[in-house]
Amino acid sequence: MRMPNLQTSLSDRFGERLITAEAARATYAQSEGHHPGLPPALVAQPVSIDEVRQLVRAAVERGMRIVGYGAGTSLEGNAAAIAPDTLVVDFSRMNAIVEIAAEDLLAVVQPGVTRESLNDELRTTGLFFPVDPGANATLGGMIATRASGTTTVRYGNMRDNLLGLKIVSAAGELIQTGTRARKSAAGYDLTHLFAGSEGTLGLIVEATLRLHGQPEHIVAASWDFASVEGAVDTVIQTIQSGVPVARMELLDTQAVLACNRQSHLGLPESPTLFLEFHGSEAGVAEQLEIVRMLGDANGGGTLQSATATEERTALWKARHHLLWASRAMVPGAQAWITDICVPISKLAEAIARAQTMIEASGLFAPILGHVGDGNFHVFFILHPDDKPGWHKAATINDAMVEHALSVGGTCTGEHGIGLGKRDALLAEHGPAAVAMMRQLKQALDPAGLFNPGKIFL
Amino acid sequence: MRMPNLQTSLSDRFGERLITAEAARATYAQSEGHHPGLPPALVAQPVSIDEVRQLVRAAVERGMRIVGYGAGTSLEGNAAAIAPDTLVVDFSRMNAIVEIAAEDLLAVVQPGVTRESLNDELRTTGLFFPVDPGANATLGGMIATRASGTTTVRYGNMRDNLLGLKIVSAAGELIQTGTRARKSAAGYDLTHLFAGSEGTLGLIVEATLRLHGQPEHIVAASWDFASVEGAVDTVIQTIQSGVPVARMELLDTQAVLACNRQSHLGLPESPTLFLEFHGSEAGVAEQLEIVRMLGDANGGGTLQSATATEERTALWKARHHLLWASRAMVPGAQAWITDICVPISKLAEAIARAQTMIEASGLFAPILGHVGDGNFHVFFILHPDDKPGWHKAATINDAMVEHALSVGGTCTGEHGIGLGKRDALLAEHGPAAVAMMRQLKQALDPAGLFNPGKIFL
Repeated sequence: MRMPNLQTSLSDRFGERLITAEAARATYAQSEGHHPGLPPALVAQPVSIDEVRQLVRAAVERGMRIVGYGAGTSLEGNAAAIAPDTLVVDFSRMNAIVEIAAEDLLAVVQPGVTRESLNDELRTTGLFFPVDPGANATLGGMIATRASGTTTVRYGNMRDNLLGLKIVSAAGELIQTGTRARKSAAGYDLTHLFAGSEGTLGLIVEATLRLHGQPEHIVAASWDFASVEGAVDTVIQTIQSGVPVARMELLDTQAVLACNRQSHLGLPESPTLFLEFHGSEAGVAEQLEIVRMLGDANGGGTLQSATATEERTALWKARHHLLWASRAMVPGAQAWITDICVPISKLAEAIARAQTMIEASGLFAPILGHVGDGNFHVFFILHPDDKPGWHKAATINDAMVEHALSVGGTCTGEHGIGLGKRDALLAEHGPAAVAMMRQLKQALDPAGLFNPGKIFL
Repeated sequence: MRMPNLQTSLSDRFGERLITAEAARATYAQSEGHHPGLPPALVAQPVSIDEVRQLVRAAVERGMRIVGYGAGTSLEGNAAAIAPDTLVVDFSRMNAIVEIAAEDLLAVVQPGVTRESLNDELRTTGLFFPVDPGANATLGGMIATRASGTTTVRYGNMRDNLLGLKIVSAAGELIQTGTRARKSAAGYDLTHLFAGSEGTLGLIVEATLRLHGQPEHIVAASWDFASVEGAVDTVIQTIQSGVPVARMELLDTQAVLACNRQSHLGLPESPTLFLEFHGSEAGVAEQLEIVRMLGDANGGGTLQSATATEERTALWKARHHLLWASRAMVPGAQAWITDICVPISKLAEAIARAQTMIEASGLFAPILGHVGDGNFHVFFILHPDDKPGWHKAATINDAMVEHALSVGGTCTGEHGIGLGKRDALLAEHGPAAVAMMRQLKQALDPAGLFNPGKIFL
């Protein structure tokens, strides 16, 4: 008897949760990044771990490939299907918060829960989940990409806020990694092997996350500087002084321009820091005073602080909409967003080099940084038809990565390797380390079931 | 031509750094834990990465096994040789601090550097390395065991303070993992796969560690409580309130007795918290006030605070000598130190259960806990000939682990699996996850070169 095709075998159970129409499948071909993928052969939206296991087994039997999909906000083609025989497992319906254990400062979530919906649910508990990459990504996707973002300087990234996972392996087995304890020395750290593996080793079907207490007092601030260097030096000195600032974001003048145009913040059009301070009222005042002193010595203008929730929200909303604001500056444009991270002492130089190259290129390319981590992005805003522009962006991106590596940095602080930085991975880690990564891939996914073509060239 | 034996082939290069005498080799058979090992066939003390690579290749050629060795302070037989054909690689001569990059808050160290010698070197830089497991372990050993300790509640464990590693693989290759950037999303997290792998996947030959600013102001305190429950509830409520206390250690009455006897602290003989607060003077005062309020409501006695360096040092020295102090209570005794970690809401119950079992057993077995992490130890103090006593200890240990797992905890918060908890690993993670760990071991060390018999049954 011939094996029924995948669609036939799944349609009874999945019904309308099986997406077969070409137009609908095509929406999975590309995420927010600039890397084009292919429409997958089929998209399934499981609602349970059992269904995920069934999908894996069905795909294995038919020699198909599997790509996990969250909110589609990744930027390096991390979740793009590139093989035609791909089954996309869309986790958007596995979006339940399984448990909030406030007394243990943890939450158990399905992978399709977004960070904003988790925080909405936490609002009344006095707790929050800090990791904030900007986009309203799914937590499963954020784990898979080892995401970080605006609050990492204080609260750590996804790796730091992850206690355990449930994984469906290439054999369709359910693997539990980690526990509810705050630390463990029990065996190999499977949890942190899967965090950042970009869906190439298995599918994340549940996660146990660390929560933090909502700060007693919050002050946000925007602060214009005479130069990017002055703003960055302020951040470097703040980190070196150990002041536990919760957020330290740099916007260069182009980013401020876009922000003003879109969000009507009326900011002075010069390099600007967006800051946030968490603590007791006295503690926040103390932190603010130290940072103000450092900034004043570095050409800081007027530090505009905001305590009211609406004002703070307006500031961070503008920050989070910066990608759209930047795209709106060039009608019909797409964005190529790159991401490097360097040791903090090398940050000012890395940003200055990027700026010089951008100016010379004539491109519109705002710079935005989670500068407290040494991490920054360039948003190349390009019309799809502007071939020379895309070429210039590629040249600048390559030079940025090369410089980051030359000063002991990394080719990606938080976006992952995906399709876009596979050559950079090799340059960063060297052939022996990448060969070791391939050995791990081969051990856990010998048939190449999961997310083929990603991470490795 | 017959291959010369290992000793002959290495003696020219290693000279007196090759340990062949039986009595000298026998000192490597057992660490501070109670698990007996065998004297290795040979011990080599390399001084460079090249020599480590040479040792690996020489051992592979002869089908010998390799066990890495630091300060011998592990507690689960993690570095005990158990195969007679073992070459121990003793890292005590690879004890150079390669670099302190104060501006990037990081240090590069050889694996044989001890945590105390790193902190001695850092004293004048304004920085420190926080992880403090009590013993003056080597940093290589602390990474291999995923160690933590007294300050983890505030500063994280070895995993959290590790940026990158150099590893010598089973093929004798040098692998570089991680960078000097504070975060990265570039490829599989090899760094954190090796952290906690207990020398079973490769040898750690260099590490890049995160440093922290020395706190502006430090206050230590000891605080007696009417009951263990009151002390533990104070800690749980402190964690739940988000007060960033730097150290929160519980000593039960037996531990205080031993401490007084050995270190003449004159503490009230009741359950006691040792605390430490880091921050600005105002910040520390604020933290202390919150904790005092919580403790007062939980039967706290007199909080004795100490600001002077000598007083603080005396307190923590007594804490760090507690193992020796406990052993001194029973002449000729050895110690079996177990280690579980539970979600903090389950901590009071876990400790109460252990106490009840210890009381019923009649054993002398002080309890000490890094209670802010939900982590505690029982020091079973036993005469080597007291067979029924060792049997009782084993029964209590098993029951503690079983209870920890039943409430979502782990069989080891920081000591690792070694020889002692291989069955517990299986109970904690289940056969599918342990099978996945074995697949990783098989992929990176197919011949079983490194630290055989550890972690896996």
